[in-house]
Amino acid sequence: MDLNTITSPSFIKDLTHEELLTLSEDIRSFLIEKLSITGGHIGPNLGVVELTVSLHRIFNSPDDKFIWDVGHQAYVHKILTGRANQFDTLRQFKGLCGFPKRIESEHDVWETGHSSTSLSAAMGMAAARDIKKDKNHIIPIIGDGALTGGMALEALNHIGHEKTDMIVILNDNEMSIAPNVGALHTVLGKLRTAGKYNKAKDELEYLLKKIPAVGGKLAATAERVKDSLKYLLVSGVFFEELGFTYLGPIDGHNYEDLQENLLYAKKMKGPVLVHVITKKGKGYRPAEEDKIGTWHGTGPYKMETGAFVKSSTTAPSWSGLVAETVRKLAREDERIVAITPAMPVGSKLEGFASEFPGRFYDVGIAEQHATTMAAGLATQEMKPFLAIYSTFLQRAYDQVLHDICRQNLNVFIGIDRSGLVGADGETHQGVFDISFLRHLPNMVIMMPKDENEGQHMVKTAIDYNDGPIALRYPRGNGIGVPMDADLKAIPIGSWEVLKEGTDAAILTFGTTIPMAMEAAARLSLEGIQVEVINARFIKPLDERMLHQLVERDLPLFTVEEAILQGGFGSSILEFIQDHEYTGVSVSRMGIPDQFIEHGNVDELLNEIHLNSDELVTRIQNKMNKIGKAGTHVL
Amino acid sequence: MDLNTITSPSFIKDLTHEELLTLSEDIRSFLIEKLSITGGHIGPNLGVVELTVSLHRIFNSPDDKFIWDVGHQAYVHKILTGRANQFDTLRQFKGLCGFPKRIESEHDVWETGHSSTSLSAAMGMAAARDIKKDKNHIIPIIGDGALTGGMALEALNHIGHEKTDMIVILNDNEMSIAPNVGALHTVLGKLRTAGKYNKAKDELEYLLKKIPAVGGKLAATAERVKDSLKYLLVSGVFFEELGFTYLGPIDGHNYEDLQENLLYAKKMKGPVLVHVITKKGKGYRPAEEDKIGTWHGTGPYKMETGAFVKSSTTAPSWSGLVAETVRKLAREDERIVAITPAMPVGSKLEGFASEFPGRFYDVGIAEQHATTMAAGLATQEMKPFLAIYSTFLQRAYDQVLHDICRQNLNVFIGIDRSGLVGADGETHQGVFDISFLRHLPNMVIMMPKDENEGQHMVKTAIDYNDGPIALRYPRGNGIGVPMDADLKAIPIGSWEVLKEGTDAAILTFGTTIPMAMEAAARLSLEGIQVEVINARFIKPLDERMLHQLVERDLPLFTVEEAILQGGFGSSILEFIQDHEYTGVSVSRMGIPDQFIEHGNVDELLNEIHLNSDELVTRIQNKMNKIGKAGTHVL
Repeated sequence: MDLNTITSPSFIKDLTHEELLTLSEDIRSFLIEKLSITGGHIGPNLGVVELTVSLHRIFNSPDDKFIWDVGHQAYVHKILTGRANQFDTLRQFKGLCGFPKRIESEHDVWETGHSSTSLSAAMGMAAARDIKKDKNHIIPIIGDGALTGGMALEALNHIGHEKTDMIVILNDNEMSIAPNVGALHTVLGKLRTAGKYNKAKDELEYLLKKIPAVGGKLAATAERVKDSLKYLLVSGVFFEELGFTYLGPIDGHNYEDLQENLLYAKKMKGPVLVHVITKKGKGYRPAEEDKIGTWHGTGPYKMETGAFVKSSTTAPSWSGLVAETVRKLAREDERIVAITPAMPVGSKLEGFASEFPGRFYDVGIAEQHATTMAAGLATQEMKPFLAIYSTFLQRAYDQVLHDICRQNLNVFIGIDRSGLVGADGETHQGVFDISFLRHLPNMVIMMPKDENEGQHMVKTAIDYNDGPIALRYPRGNGIGVPMDADLKAIPIGSWEVLKEGTDAAILTFGTTIPMAMEAAARLSLEGIQVEVINARFIKPLDERMLHQLVERDLPLFTVEEAILQGGFGSSILEFIQDHEYTGVSVSRMGIPDQFIEHGNVDELLNEIHLNSDELVTRIQNKMNKIGKAGTHVL
Repeated sequence: MDLNTITSPSFIKDLTHEELLTLSEDIRSFLIEKLSITGGHIGPNLGVVELTVSLHRIFNSPDDKFIWDVGHQAYVHKILTGRANQFDTLRQFKGLCGFPKRIESEHDVWETGHSSTSLSAAMGMAAARDIKKDKNHIIPIIGDGALTGGMALEALNHIGHEKTDMIVILNDNEMSIAPNVGALHTVLGKLRTAGKYNKAKDELEYLLKKIPAVGGKLAATAERVKDSLKYLLVSGVFFEELGFTYLGPIDGHNYEDLQENLLYAKKMKGPVLVHVITKKGKGYRPAEEDKIGTWHGTGPYKMETGAFVKSSTTAPSWSGLVAETVRKLAREDERIVAITPAMPVGSKLEGFASEFPGRFYDVGIAEQHATTMAAGLATQEMKPFLAIYSTFLQRAYDQVLHDICRQNLNVFIGIDRSGLVGADGETHQGVFDISFLRHLPNMVIMMPKDENEGQHMVKTAIDYNDGPIALRYPRGNGIGVPMDADLKAIPIGSWEVLKEGTDAAILTFGTTIPMAMEAAARLSLEGIQVEVINARFIKPLDERMLHQLVERDLPLFTVEEAILQGGFGSSILEFIQDHEYTGVSVSRMGIPDQFIEHGNVDELLNEIHLNSDELVTRIQNKMNKIGKAGTHVL
């Protein structure tokens, strides 16, 4: 069928089994084709085609609430709820969001991006339903990877206790982003091999009959044994222990199995967990054969072959540069241990892991544990490198504060994907970390201007033994500068003058340095000489240089690809006030007090006027105001 | 024995059973007497006397590492490691810390205060040990309440997966701070009633013999059944599923049981969980009889009777004022639902819970889940009131950001214990919340000057339907002002002039208002007329009033009992810069860039010069500088 004609999921209820199969095929072809152009989360979505169709067949969205954990697997849901015709704009500026989005559709009842929130959200919605005495179903859909996130486990514990009516779909594809780790993963593995409900029940009943009657005080024990047996054989004991009725495992690509079990779950009281086995990338061979998560989310690819459309840059990726420099240093420094919360591929730690398997930990989706485990290592004179995306470090704010900074431990935090990340949008922009780290005592924060400085900063972080140190680096690739052969530590809190100037000074760091250099070059043509400073230490500031700048009476312009409130620019304001300087002109550019949606990073920056045009204009205006315009024209 | 003579725990290894019993008695008498004067966490410590003595008897601290989760139960450990003679200064300024403190003793290997960090820290220490090929034991001691915290569950999952050698002591007293909730609590309950290992094993073997041999394809099933039976009867299946060897349950007040099981655990490979049943308050009747957590942590009490030494104030407690006002409004507003993460008593929500049992949720120690559950409720047009201590809200930073603020949901966050909390010290000071909330888009933050304004702010928060709103309130009691009978909402972002003045203006809120008023009164005697402004909205600012203040050319002095970096004062600097005002003098007072230890709040404030003396001096100096001193003397 033409998926673009779908306006509501209600048509699915009337389809025959044959028509369901055709619909699945149409959806898969559609996704494989569309995503080959736009890129996106192809693997997860190909895995949930039958599951999503079945959910919309058995339940009534939006009365019944589907809550997609993480949310990158909601493309099929978007197609079935009338958004197929927007897929050409997927993850693009002002286009279809790659995650559920409440303004897009009444069928998107919960927005996500970060993992493991669905069960808590579902508990809130279920509580509201029960208070209002409504009768609708609440259906969180959570992956086996997301289930290891602490907040999902907190929610399981609470939901099981409250005995709340809820149908949790456990979408078990044995791989979240990378292959899963954790004891829970083993539990699920045992369940998958334990065979299906009915067969076990038959065997059980036969066996129970074989146990002879016993009298006296053993009778009670025998009864308990019979209960236990039944319990253990017919159910996922782990989930049953937590108060859930366990159904499964179910073949998540078989419409009959799905329908039977979802209908059964729909009739039950209390919390039910339906264990659905799916295959990531199902129906597209390159994605099906993926073992490490390459096809979790991709850029454009050639549909016929699955070959990725290569980016034109030859500069190293930031993740790779940092990980490989840590690896190099680890050859001579046995204190170095690398930790990732489920991002070995994204953080490019595969090389480190294979060279130092005993000093590498992928702890699963568990940012809090990863962070405090790093603190534990540091108490024993080790040097943990915690590689974590800026947006996911938000999950470990208290662990950074209470465990690392408060104990002033030597943890090296690699803050990957700092700044705007583009297509993943609102939930993934790494724009808060400066504001949530800068106010923590003992914290050092740095960001390099290019990959060569980046490698020296890795060395700086490893050599630093006075407390926590964080290195921010952006998503994507470096700029292709020559790399020094020898690594050298950079003095903590030292800035660098990139271009001298006499009329104004721009203070910036990392990705916004090119913008500053461009603005300075343009202004130079007008005779305005702007100093550009690589403020590579965001904390501590280079106070010596700051004093000099103030004494030289230069108007200051701060630029950061980060939220303005409490950010780097504010720290300059604080410095000036702390030292009771008066009359210093400061202008701050950065991310305003709003969430930034998805799109190409340059488009996003232009949208919020965080670009060289704005910087040039601000400096020109300032020069005009103080009567300096043109005074330096040659 | 005289506990003051203990310098090292090694003497315990040589004690006879009789001597151990005497030692326990001596420790209990010591604690009951000392804490009756200083206050402290009496219940938890009386519960772990035999456990702590046994740990120091079987293991060798500090080579073997004891990691006390939360840490408030480490008093016995402090006594046994040579700190009995410091108990007169417990939790006092410059005195013995109420939590483990690394600078106090080599036996304190990990500092805590927040719950659920011990397993992650232990995993880090164990990883370091294994990398160094050391042989010491790592022994986290965690309560049944702390185990429900998400990060503890993340760690369990990871440790079980890694099969790391570690001895987890589960100190199960059936009550953490309040009676526990959660499915895990039910799991533990079943284990407790399941009887002890040996008895079950005897019964099991008898029964297994009664199962007849079966042939053919059923044989394998029968084998599986036998394994399952054994598994279920002799072990805590929940923990075994996660990869732990389960030992217990053990009577935590019986030295022989403890010794036998700890020795056994010491010999085992892989992770072991020793389930120890203890009684909170053991040996002191008033504390033993406590059902709701009153004796978890206390102020001074009369040793003979257990009567608490009453505080002299008759003003309502802040927690009680806010909770009771929410309760009052809930009578007419069915949208209101109250949520607490394990603090029903501390947050004074007992009244709400008993009046609205269907609209009250104690979710256990699970701040992340509590926060996102509130967001889920808000999506369904409910009005959740999340009562949470400032320091614990740190745990839910990402949930506030990603789930509440990003979706702009109507959640009312009651931030209890904002500002300095005193005796609990570093880990509990509520001084970061302004800096970690202020940079979140959509967030409203307010703090009242007194309990009457506090009740109106509760009304304000309930009436506000444009997104999240947070109400900060301090630990302790109000100041005893008359209360209005009718509640009225305060316009969002509106400040209030408390005292007019023409020479300078103090901008402050909440607990520091009296300090400002005092300073203004003192300065008035010198002829300096200072305006005092109740900046009750920390975000958004009262921009109209700020413009007026700047236009009146008044030097501004901001005062906040919160960290200065990125705080309220910084938001004033940002405002001035955003509006390109020049020459405005601002002076910020608040908490400097350091962690603040335990002690009486006034002592702590004086230590960091956050007091009226400093404020007076700063204003005087400013007046001198601009030549205004004395110009207004009458």
